[in-house]
Amino acid sequence: MGPAVGQAKPAGGPHAVDRLAALLAEDLSAVDALIHQHMSSPVGVIPNLAAHLIDAGGKRVRPMITLAAARLLGGGGDGPRKLAAAVEFIHSATLLHDDVVDVSSMRRGKDAANVLWGNSSSVLVGDFLFARSFNLMVETGDIKVLDILARAASVIAEGEVMQLAAANDADTTRARYMEIIAAKTAALFAAAGKAGAVAAGRPGAEADALETYGRELGLAFQLVDDALDYGGRAATMGKNAGDDFKEGKVTLPVVFAREAADEAELSFWRRVMGGERTEDDFHRAAALIRRHGAIEKTLEAARLHSRAAVAALESLTQNAYRDALADLADFVVERGY
Amino acid sequence: MGPAVGQAKPAGGPHAVDRLAALLAEDLSAVDALIHQHMSSPVGVIPNLAAHLIDAGGKRVRPMITLAAARLLGGGGDGPRKLAAAVEFIHSATLLHDDVVDVSSMRRGKDAANVLWGNSSSVLVGDFLFARSFNLMVETGDIKVLDILARAASVIAEGEVMQLAAANDADTTRARYMEIIAAKTAALFAAAGKAGAVAAGRPGAEADALETYGRELGLAFQLVDDALDYGGRAATMGKNAGDDFKEGKVTLPVVFAREAADEAELSFWRRVMGGERTEDDFHRAAALIRRHGAIEKTLEAARLHSRAAVAALESLTQNAYRDALADLADFVVERGY
Repeated sequence: MGPAVGQAKPAGGPHAVDRLAALLAEDLSAVDALIHQHMSSPVGVIPNLAAHLIDAGGKRVRPMITLAAARLLGGGGDGPRKLAAAVEFIHSATLLHDDVVDVSSMRRGKDAANVLWGNSSSVLVGDFLFARSFNLMVETGDIKVLDILARAASVIAEGEVMQLAAANDADTTRARYMEIIAAKTAALFAAAGKAGAVAAGRPGAEADALETYGRELGLAFQLVDDALDYGGRAATMGKNAGDDFKEGKVTLPVVFAREAADEAELSFWRRVMGGERTEDDFHRAAALIRRHGAIEKTLEAARLHSRAAVAALESLTQNAYRDALADLADFVVERGY
Repeated sequence: MGPAVGQAKPAGGPHAVDRLAALLAEDLSAVDALIHQHMSSPVGVIPNLAAHLIDAGGKRVRPMITLAAARLLGGGGDGPRKLAAAVEFIHSATLLHDDVVDVSSMRRGKDAANVLWGNSSSVLVGDFLFARSFNLMVETGDIKVLDILARAASVIAEGEVMQLAAANDADTTRARYMEIIAAKTAALFAAAGKAGAVAAGRPGAEADALETYGRELGLAFQLVDDALDYGGRAATMGKNAGDDFKEGKVTLPVVFAREAADEAELSFWRRVMGGERTEDDFHRAAALIRRHGAIEKTLEAARLHSRAAVAALESLTQNAYRDALADLADFVVERGY
């Protein structure tokens, strides 16, 4: 299990993700065991399809946030591990349903599950993983964490529906885009941080700080992802570049390019983001985005959120876990360069 | 909200479903308020799509089981109502995903949501309702009921995947069929009964009895549904007859007809349930099923489960709720005749 995306390394060491993984090695191996235990089923398609996704080298960023949040605050025991596995299951269920909704063909560098097993199996195995995430939470016996993650799950679904409704709406604003990514992506990062703190028995200001950390990190993460979709390559991203464009998603690089557009470019954006686009249009879109520095502007926005994530940690006791979370926030933006 | 299916009335009164609904009138109106409150969202598609399904005149059989189980045992307060709403949300989410998986076009006598809003919206709004069901359970503050319903949710998903894997498998056995319907249908009925008892503070033998009642009722309910699919009319069923055949589902009427088949009929069943079938084949299938008395045999199997449901109630205090649950078990089979 290594980082699947990005090749940039900060001077003098491995990726921040790898350093965090090393710090949490024992926890992560226990989480992996919990994941495999809870995705088992006598119905063979379920573990096969789930393993195809879950064992494909995802970075486990969200469960690491839960684990690091709990350990940072001195929380021990099995609770944070179960929560971390639950968080990964919610994320996995979302990915399976996303790929059906987006008609995606590639995920984590492999054929997407819907391509191999069909949309129906992806929908139903997603449902199974989602249900199992609640089984795991119930095992912690802590209804407060159930509250946090159940709320996040409904916000994620709202974000996905918002995104679907905004597809092929060329007039999508920056505010609307931020609202969508706050719900579909940042809500789970925020809940992952908060739930870890609550599992460590620290539901007050420290949980709020880790919730803010998660939310800001999640926003930065999604912004970088959306920048890479106009600049990355499938091999380093684990998915196809240009997917957002193909799906008519107006992401921040498009918003920035549109803001800087002349009349001819505006009419191009209106046409292609309004639903009439060909494969060739992607190259012009990517060229316009580069010409107007929209990738850099998007990464700069990501950097601001990454800094806010680091700032949220400042009120907490400084230790190796806090440092690793701060490094992770830097790394999330670095992978965009 | 009246019964959407079946026209048979026992002598001297309204449907058992209506009598149960009258007994629970106050609870049901509170449950309806909770349902509408928890399906609200600033994202307009969500309440619109959810209302299309939920306000379409479903019978609310599952939430009524939860409510009646709690009231039967003297349980009061808001807990059982929240659980009942949660149970209806799980059921609704399942219906939305089912209709996508089965490519269904009709549900509760109307166009299915996937026809009007598309598969993607149905998948995502299903996810939203599923998440909200857990929000409702969390509000009860009772982790025991969360455990019951989260387990049921994963069993339902297993049942749906099993059913998908068995589609177009002409050799599906009666045992396999029963395993599928126990998971996809009866598990939620069983959990609805058990959760009601647990919410009333009676987690022991009484909860077990109501779990058995629910499971047996659920089996009877599905068997009758599957019989109606070869004998009912869309107007009384609220969905298209022949859907199971069209989807290659080997249900009990087919199993019985196959058991009584001669060589030519066997080869017909192998061909059509193996995946090669035309619209016209349905008429021959329905004719063979009638000729071999397979509808009656299926309804007889349903009656045995209905009797087992009534028998499970016998250890409980006799009162109006217990009587109404027993009547419901009778009604579920009567609607098949």
